[in-house]
Amino acid sequence: MAETWATSPSGQALGIDLHIEPTGSGLRRGLTDALRDAVRGGRLAPGTRLPASRTLAADLGIARNTVADAYADLVAEGWLTARQGSGTRVAERPVEAPRPVTAPGRRTPGTLLHDLHPGTPDLASFPRAAWLKAARRALTEAPNDALGYGDPRGRPELRTALAHYLARARGVHAHPDRIVVCAGFAQGLMLLGEVLRRRGLSDIAVESYGLDAHWDILARAGLRTRPLPLDERGTDTAALEPRPGGAVLLTPAHQFPLGVPLHPDRRAAAVDWARRTGGLILEDDYDGEFRYDRQPVGALQGLDPDRVAYLGTASKSLAPGLRLGWLVLPAALTDEVAAAKGDSDWSCGVLDQLTLAEFLRSGAYDRHLRGARLRYRRRRDHLVAALAEQAPAVRATGIAAGLHAVLRLPPGTEQSVVRAAAWQRLRVAGLSSFRHEDTAHPAPAPDALVVGYGTPPDHAWAGALDALCRVLP
Amino acid sequence: MAETWATSPSGQALGIDLHIEPTGSGLRRGLTDALRDAVRGGRLAPGTRLPASRTLAADLGIARNTVADAYADLVAEGWLTARQGSGTRVAERPVEAPRPVTAPGRRTPGTLLHDLHPGTPDLASFPRAAWLKAARRALTEAPNDALGYGDPRGRPELRTALAHYLARARGVHAHPDRIVVCAGFAQGLMLLGEVLRRRGLSDIAVESYGLDAHWDILARAGLRTRPLPLDERGTDTAALEPRPGGAVLLTPAHQFPLGVPLHPDRRAAAVDWARRTGGLILEDDYDGEFRYDRQPVGALQGLDPDRVAYLGTASKSLAPGLRLGWLVLPAALTDEVAAAKGDSDWSCGVLDQLTLAEFLRSGAYDRHLRGARLRYRRRRDHLVAALAEQAPAVRATGIAAGLHAVLRLPPGTEQSVVRAAAWQRLRVAGLSSFRHEDTAHPAPAPDALVVGYGTPPDHAWAGALDALCRVLP
Repeated sequence: MAETWATSPSGQALGIDLHIEPTGSGLRRGLTDALRDAVRGGRLAPGTRLPASRTLAADLGIARNTVADAYADLVAEGWLTARQGSGTRVAERPVEAPRPVTAPGRRTPGTLLHDLHPGTPDLASFPRAAWLKAARRALTEAPNDALGYGDPRGRPELRTALAHYLARARGVHAHPDRIVVCAGFAQGLMLLGEVLRRRGLSDIAVESYGLDAHWDILARAGLRTRPLPLDERGTDTAALEPRPGGAVLLTPAHQFPLGVPLHPDRRAAAVDWARRTGGLILEDDYDGEFRYDRQPVGALQGLDPDRVAYLGTASKSLAPGLRLGWLVLPAALTDEVAAAKGDSDWSCGVLDQLTLAEFLRSGAYDRHLRGARLRYRRRRDHLVAALAEQAPAVRATGIAAGLHAVLRLPPGTEQSVVRAAAWQRLRVAGLSSFRHEDTAHPAPAPDALVVGYGTPPDHAWAGALDALCRVLP
Repeated sequence: MAETWATSPSGQALGIDLHIEPTGSGLRRGLTDALRDAVRGGRLAPGTRLPASRTLAADLGIARNTVADAYADLVAEGWLTARQGSGTRVAERPVEAPRPVTAPGRRTPGTLLHDLHPGTPDLASFPRAAWLKAARRALTEAPNDALGYGDPRGRPELRTALAHYLARARGVHAHPDRIVVCAGFAQGLMLLGEVLRRRGLSDIAVESYGLDAHWDILARAGLRTRPLPLDERGTDTAALEPRPGGAVLLTPAHQFPLGVPLHPDRRAAAVDWARRTGGLILEDDYDGEFRYDRQPVGALQGLDPDRVAYLGTASKSLAPGLRLGWLVLPAALTDEVAAAKGDSDWSCGVLDQLTLAEFLRSGAYDRHLRGARLRYRRRRDHLVAALAEQAPAVRATGIAAGLHAVLRLPPGTEQSVVRAAAWQRLRVAGLSSFRHEDTAHPAPAPDALVVGYGTPPDHAWAGALDALCRVLP
């Protein structure tokens, strides 16, 4: 813990205990969290001017860039404001507390002009009329029993519809009995983490880039996350540990955030590992429906349904607010995961489950996805064209898929671009913020931005793209 | 663990490991669970004839009644069938597995003729048309942002509507900022249990009669449940331990299952205890809206919002399948509980939240409750009249409220009545099944049935009541 000083609006010195560990990795995140907590908890009042990054860095005995980065993160999130000439201050109307701050695509407050943070689809294109139509039909036809305490795996209508859809669209080998409907990917991962921990697992391999929100979920379940090596062919699943009964979390169809599919050799290596060691692959298929250049690569689960737990979600294809996701599980895990779901909240709400079942069955989901694919593909093309014209030093990498692109930047420029974006009130993520802190990278980490082109509504997209191009080198 | 034998359909002897602890309390439940698991897991195949209760009791070295009771429970749940002349057999079409078996009011399978188990409202009277109307309006008016990752406390529209409603209907002192919307009472209790455990609590006082599903939730959170003494004036809150920072879970408006409100002196004693010791009261207000003879007693929370965490639910007033409940929390707990909710599943689904907000705001909820009150009151009157005429030895006790009645039986008859009901394929609960196993009762436990008159649909109510009267002494 370190103590430092900020100047309050009245000019009186104010002591703040920042509760950060001044050593070790994760320092930037630790400082960001500590400052955010101080604002949220009221210890740093609105309008308070923060010390210059140089001063705070000296007080804490850390690098100035770490402080500057933490300030930039908090400006982007809306906790702080930064204006030339008036320094960095606590925002006058701070974000409504409390909220988890690591949610993918969490909306930032009113001071933000543009949001290109990845993780959220275009909420303005949620198919409201079609959804309501499906809701009417589903609720009209539902048996009374459907409204009672139900099967923790979820409504059979939805599990049946998902089994058909996932087989057809993603090559998933899905029997309704092995599906557990859950409150989004996050809860599905939590349930699997808890079950694996109870079975004696103590750590789980993960990709070296991903979402710390997911690693946190695993950590809360008692699992230590260990990043796999990353090389020019992507995540090296051949490096999975050979001891029996391990587990690995992968995004095979479209690595998040790097934007590439798992290399075919590495897919095979993962499945071989799981068969050889009795291991389990957790397949995060968050945006498998969105591929723009050709048929998406099928789910890994189809290769070995007994060794892969498939996790899908409506959060990217429809809306995160639905809180609906699904697990397709090996037979040996289904009962335990279903029991964990029952212990957590009995089941998901049945009305949205029945509506999604009707939405899938009626073809409305396919229609919605066709429209969404077209919209996102146009945005991606637009982004690539704008880069070629306005920022030739920047290159979009990864496959034409999903709701985000990775923009490779000239070496050493990522942090300054993210800071410049924050000054423009443009929310965009640096690739380094997705890096697992235990990553042993063979080469200097690439400088890049992760741009979520799904996030803005149509009317705001062009403006967001302009703002982005203005801050690119 | 004990091993015993059953006869398979082919007549071959079959060894089953029942995995029960042959000593200690909870033996009946342990045996019931072990047999259910054996059926569910396929170790006892459909059609298998079970040994006579006398034989199994001798094998296990336990009382014959314990075996007979376990068999009766499983007949009532639909796992076993019992027919005069053919003994007890594994049901041909066993209940779809897996499902938690302790849910209040869980629907039992097709072989059941009548269901008077408490815990579920009349699902046939769910206001489908009014709900769809509210859903249409709510989804049409919702801002796009509402569909994203949201505040873990829930949508502000719903928290505001709940604050108004709870103040008006239940005397709850509710600010929207202190409300956390959760997936029914069960999740709310889990979140509170986890937060209290993290704060160092190791045990929690409970009422001596209640739902083991709730005690199990607290146990999973790491809290040992200790029943308070029960005397002729009800739960003795004056016996709450004086050490600082304790907690107690109460059903003050309508004790479940005994059906009486907490005595005014005991209400005062609970609040005094909480103030004196810095303790916390968890107020389970599961059916506070349903009182038929006069205005319901207001929530305890109104007496001291800083010392009472109020838990409400839509499961009794609307339907359990909605999976919507709400916590009204002391300021000191709100952030931690909201963070625990975020960690668990980010938030509840927004569409049902927005719909419930509109349902409350538009007056549709009040209209629905007026209709439901009338329906349940008529059923209760009908039940009391039928008892007077057909079973004068049985007396309905408790206040005219809620969705269940307690029928006092002549001493020593509870188990035989529950068994007789199971033979009639009538599902009804004995009071003893709600008794905490650590209860030190000052007198012999009363023999009684807990009858849920909310459960059957209208067309089945008269038949269920007739079946009940046939098995009463």
